[in-house]
Amino acid sequence: MSKSYLDIIKIKSNKCFNGKQNVYKHFSKSTDCEMTFSVYFPNNYENKNVSVLFFLSGLTCTHENFISKAGSQALADELNLVIVAPDTSPRGVKIDGDDESWDFGTGAGFYLNSKAKVWSKNYNMYDYIVNDLYETIFYNFNLKDSKAGILGHSMGGHGAIMIALKNPDKFQSISAFSPILCPSKYPWGIKAFSNYLGDNKDDWAEYDSSILITKSKEKRAILIDQGLDDEFYKTELGTDDFEQIANQIEYPITLRRHEGYDHSYYFISSFLKDHFEWHKNQLR
Amino acid sequence: MSKSYLDIIKIKSNKCFNGKQNVYKHFSKSTDCEMTFSVYFPNNYENKNVSVLFFLSGLTCTHENFISKAGSQALADELNLVIVAPDTSPRGVKIDGDDESWDFGTGAGFYLNSKAKVWSKNYNMYDYIVNDLYETIFYNFNLKDSKAGILGHSMGGHGAIMIALKNPDKFQSISAFSPILCPSKYPWGIKAFSNYLGDNKDDWAEYDSSILITKSKEKRAILIDQGLDDEFYKTELGTDDFEQIANQIEYPITLRRHEGYDHSYYFISSFLKDHFEWHKNQLR
Repeated sequence: MSKSYLDIIKIKSNKCFNGKQNVYKHFSKSTDCEMTFSVYFPNNYENKNVSVLFFLSGLTCTHENFISKAGSQALADELNLVIVAPDTSPRGVKIDGDDESWDFGTGAGFYLNSKAKVWSKNYNMYDYIVNDLYETIFYNFNLKDSKAGILGHSMGGHGAIMIALKNPDKFQSISAFSPILCPSKYPWGIKAFSNYLGDNKDDWAEYDSSILITKSKEKRAILIDQGLDDEFYKTELGTDDFEQIANQIEYPITLRRHEGYDHSYYFISSFLKDHFEWHKNQLR
Repeated sequence: MSKSYLDIIKIKSNKCFNGKQNVYKHFSKSTDCEMTFSVYFPNNYENKNVSVLFFLSGLTCTHENFISKAGSQALADELNLVIVAPDTSPRGVKIDGDDESWDFGTGAGFYLNSKAKVWSKNYNMYDYIVNDLYETIFYNFNLKDSKAGILGHSMGGHGAIMIALKNPDKFQSISAFSPILCPSKYPWGIKAFSNYLGDNKDDWAEYDSSILITKSKEKRAILIDQGLDDEFYKTELGTDDFEQIANQIEYPITLRRHEGYDHSYYFISSFLKDHFEWHKNQLR
């Protein structure tokens, strides 16, 4: 396989609704390994005024969870959206400890660039998403005139908000389901940040949305949906802390709490239409 | 666990759209083992005029594939449908050879009652669906005044059509995605029928929809969707044979062939709305 991330290989293609659900591989310089990603194309998208949405998945997921479980294709077809869903970590790089736990290492890249020696060669999902994948999508699929938004779930909600806050020119609309909003304060984030980044809290702040919003000049609106029966709501996500900070600095968030919904794809699928329409409106 | 199939245990419940996606276990006399099944309930279904649809899955599937991949809940919620999705075989009964291949034994019960000695104690999915599960659903969930339809995919499409033809009073509407229509003539069906039933072709005829339609008095309409890029279309399903027989005897089928679609859930999800609406209309 070629060593340029712009060279992609299509490994799967399924007609779905009127478009195509495709899966590709390419070599990423940032992660120094082959990465898999999926793209849904509405039928005849080249001749339509499409927007591009990047969906970042949560812990343990691959490029496949979102495209098989969220019911996204019906909506993307209807709303003329190209949907990109990447993997959540490097794969097959075989670092000691990368497969020991479900919340760290493989399937848990946390969308950051690692600093700790053993991880920093491969665990650079931030650069992968923002540079390699972004350029691959816009270069390969004739999407140069399209705008892009970003959304995600749980760890991917953290990734989406954090990446959008740091790259307002690349991603112009933002939303998240059950996102990790204060990773520096709760166990999943602390485990990831301390192992990938080391002890310097300044490095952590670079990837913590609850800190990044206080520095954001653009104050672009964020839609967040949170289930109240989500077992991780109080212990991992920092939703209430984030809301308090946003309110203090008058950062525009639309945070909706939903009775009875949990952390699963059953929750995501229930409100995905609202999110796609939110992005469609923001990108208009 | 109790030995009556009417005693069920709820093992999972996820709010999805406005209803609940639940999973249950019960002991089936027919399969002499514990069976898992899923049910989607629209919100407040007890006070609505709901219909019940049974979805039978294909080879290798459990109760879970359909509920996580088909996008069914949005539609069931909208159309007031209770959707039941059972497993595709007994599980954990440990018969020699039940785990050797993906198209026979575990995950491949073929919705028939076995006659061959080693299988006949457990592999009685026909009785399980038609009696145990059917009664469990209507008894436990206050659905006695509701009508029922049945649909399925591939092996489950065979199951749905075959079961409906043999039980017109229980299942009053019929549809299928990429169904096995002439199991006696193609490899999957031949392997299953010869091993579960033995060599007597009269026994095979009891479970072959292409034979059963010639004996059907009611001639209830059947909706069938088939993808033309389905790798199993010509080698396993017998679609064209079935169509020819149906046309000869003037059996009412609506067989739609779709350019570009394959055998996957991406195909099912693309046309599921049409099927649910078909059942809704037939059951009116």
